[in-house]
Amino acid sequence: MPDATHDPARRSWVPSANGHPDFPIQNLPLGLFTPPGGGAPRAGVAIGDAILELEEALPDGTLNALLAQGAPWRRALRARLSEELAEGSAAQSRLALRLHPAAACTLHVPARIGDYTDFYVGIHHATAVGKLFRPDNPLLPNYKHVPIGYHGRASSIIASGTAFRRPAGQLPRPEGPAFGPCERLDYELELGIWIGPGNAQGAPIPIREAAQHIAGFCLLNDWSARDIQAWEYQPLGPFLGKSFATSISPWIISPEALEPFRIAPPARPAGDPAPLPYLRDAADAAAGGLDLALEAWLVTPGLAAQGLPPHRIADSNARHMYWTAAQMVAHHSSNGCNLNPGDLFGSGTISGPERDGYASLLEATQGGREPLKLASGEERRFLEDGDEVILRATARRAGFVTIGFGECRGRVLPAG
Amino acid sequence: MPDATHDPARRSWVPSANGHPDFPIQNLPLGLFTPPGGGAPRAGVAIGDAILELEEALPDGTLNALLAQGAPWRRALRARLSEELAEGSAAQSRLALRLHPAAACTLHVPARIGDYTDFYVGIHHATAVGKLFRPDNPLLPNYKHVPIGYHGRASSIIASGTAFRRPAGQLPRPEGPAFGPCERLDYELELGIWIGPGNAQGAPIPIREAAQHIAGFCLLNDWSARDIQAWEYQPLGPFLGKSFATSISPWIISPEALEPFRIAPPARPAGDPAPLPYLRDAADAAAGGLDLALEAWLVTPGLAAQGLPPHRIADSNARHMYWTAAQMVAHHSSNGCNLNPGDLFGSGTISGPERDGYASLLEATQGGREPLKLASGEERRFLEDGDEVILRATARRAGFVTIGFGECRGRVLPAG
Repeated sequence: MPDATHDPARRSWVPSANGHPDFPIQNLPLGLFTPPGGGAPRAGVAIGDAILELEEALPDGTLNALLAQGAPWRRALRARLSEELAEGSAAQSRLALRLHPAAACTLHVPARIGDYTDFYVGIHHATAVGKLFRPDNPLLPNYKHVPIGYHGRASSIIASGTAFRRPAGQLPRPEGPAFGPCERLDYELELGIWIGPGNAQGAPIPIREAAQHIAGFCLLNDWSARDIQAWEYQPLGPFLGKSFATSISPWIISPEALEPFRIAPPARPAGDPAPLPYLRDAADAAAGGLDLALEAWLVTPGLAAQGLPPHRIADSNARHMYWTAAQMVAHHSSNGCNLNPGDLFGSGTISGPERDGYASLLEATQGGREPLKLASGEERRFLEDGDEVILRATARRAGFVTIGFGECRGRVLPAG
Repeated sequence: MPDATHDPARRSWVPSANGHPDFPIQNLPLGLFTPPGGGAPRAGVAIGDAILELEEALPDGTLNALLAQGAPWRRALRARLSEELAEGSAAQSRLALRLHPAAACTLHVPARIGDYTDFYVGIHHATAVGKLFRPDNPLLPNYKHVPIGYHGRASSIIASGTAFRRPAGQLPRPEGPAFGPCERLDYELELGIWIGPGNAQGAPIPIREAAQHIAGFCLLNDWSARDIQAWEYQPLGPFLGKSFATSISPWIISPEALEPFRIAPPARPAGDPAPLPYLRDAADAAAGGLDLALEAWLVTPGLAAQGLPPHRIADSNARHMYWTAAQMVAHHSSNGCNLNPGDLFGSGTISGPERDGYASLLEATQGGREPLKLASGEERRFLEDGDEVILRATARRAGFVTIGFGECRGRVLPAG
């Protein structure tokens, strides 16, 4: 339940925090950063335009050990920092010595990601993509029973702001495949879910305990090479069409910060099957969803050269997830698979039901057939070299202070 | 080229090494073990029935840093140990103090596996499984162009000898899925490939350099829940049907030890497409294959109770791989995906062309329709609780000493 850390009247002695679109004192996300002077990465908390350096030691230079602590540690840290960063705190003079200007710091992928799993819980995405291939029967028969997911590549996950090369691969051609730079490069707007304590192999996490294993959330851009993917993915699923790069926002937004923005997941339409018992929990059914605005913006070389603002290419919301984060955790471990602190889940593309919410170019341009028209006069079927995609997430609710995730940015470099 | 370390006349002062089926002085594989007295895991080399403890420090308690060293370090270590462990070596008295009886040591998964990828290069397996679903068109159109693979789960990889629980999951039923213990539990006989130095993101490994990034080989049992897999795998591939457990043999057999057993990969039948240039290399085409006998054996509670020997359930050979290990490395990195030291590849099931070489029960029992009959009077369509599968690999060639991989064992515990 919302507590004093969510009090909208609480303001910080860090002036930039008050009214900050992402990091007011009601957010306090954890991250891994290198301060302006360099040195080993350390733990920090975002507050306005600053980063407060924590005193916690990081034995392996990552936040894994902190993610393993679980909710009691996280709640205690949040309560303490909320008080110490509040206006009038006696801790101000002590903490001010550990503040760094965020713009001069380097933010890292916060944890050593042991395993990365990408789900497919955006039902409007699954439907829209399915329609491109199977107009009469877009959703496969398992979709409303199984939180579909697949193992992704952990090594190529990069922090926001890291540019990446356009991948090359086998491209389907009428005369047979040819190897060359991807011609259908796409983005996907997803929610990332950081795993906390986790479970031992052979000991599944019951759905009623699943939420305790979620350490936080981020934005995730599942860059996709549609041509490579289309040719390679039968019968074992996406592989090189995905594993060249996945961008994440560096701040871990805690479940506690998001408490005021919890909602019931969307009601299942009449006729949809009930979840099997191992995926059913009253608390999750009541508040397992998130009201979180999700947006994707495109910056092209043409827009930038003409001084034009970014073009919004998707306007969606995390409420469109068919399965909750807790259901993903319970399902993933239901076969005995062990989840570890620092594992990362992607939600899958979270598209809205209408065209403006389609959260990949594959959907928004109908497979490239209906290009986007930009104010610069440019058109986009897929991403071109120099294009940058910016993801944003914002939680708003009357009576509470708005919080955001910070940006997830990534730019396409030419093929090598 | 074979050198003095392969000399069949070289014998060891460790008596059990001479004539040892797996670990004569010509093998010298690297592993991670805890000695009988306990303590931190350390690096060792198998020699006969003993383990020679190495002096190399392991900063993070794994072999990752040694795998990162690459071929020059590996070759120098091999040459030195081959001399020091040879009969007549002046090093005998010094090294004898660092020998441990292998049977009293604990062997571990040797590296922190950053990412695990499972390929599908056993063409007879792909054909046999494809026939079960598509009798007229068993191989998909991409198979002979693309070394098909998918991302696997690294966390649930376990060392030989670790038992695991039968997984539960969603099982397809005529009236809709039900959650329960897997009823079609299977094994898969695969070759594992350990990655050495690796590449930076965005910098693919050319095929001519790919072999330099292979640190060694092991056996891999890709346990598979066929019922869970069949229901979940569309459209994103295998997930919980695989991620409950994957067993590997603990010794890393070096490329140098296997040099005498190199062969040309199987000639592509007339009409098969030539590999695209990024997968083509003269040295790889001449000697990228391995003549390595691969076997799977089944021990059931009934066989054990009656004192009967294990039943051989597959008799195959690594020569049946359609793509070479170097082609897997070049393909995997071709999109810019970064491979890291300690990453693991599975080959995919390596079946032979005939029934006795079918290296999964799915194939050997034709999807459970034709049960195996055992000397104990038992039948097996799929694995039952208490069953144990043992994988073995043996390299033999006239004029050279036979070497083996050591066993990869795993036993099925009842569902939790």
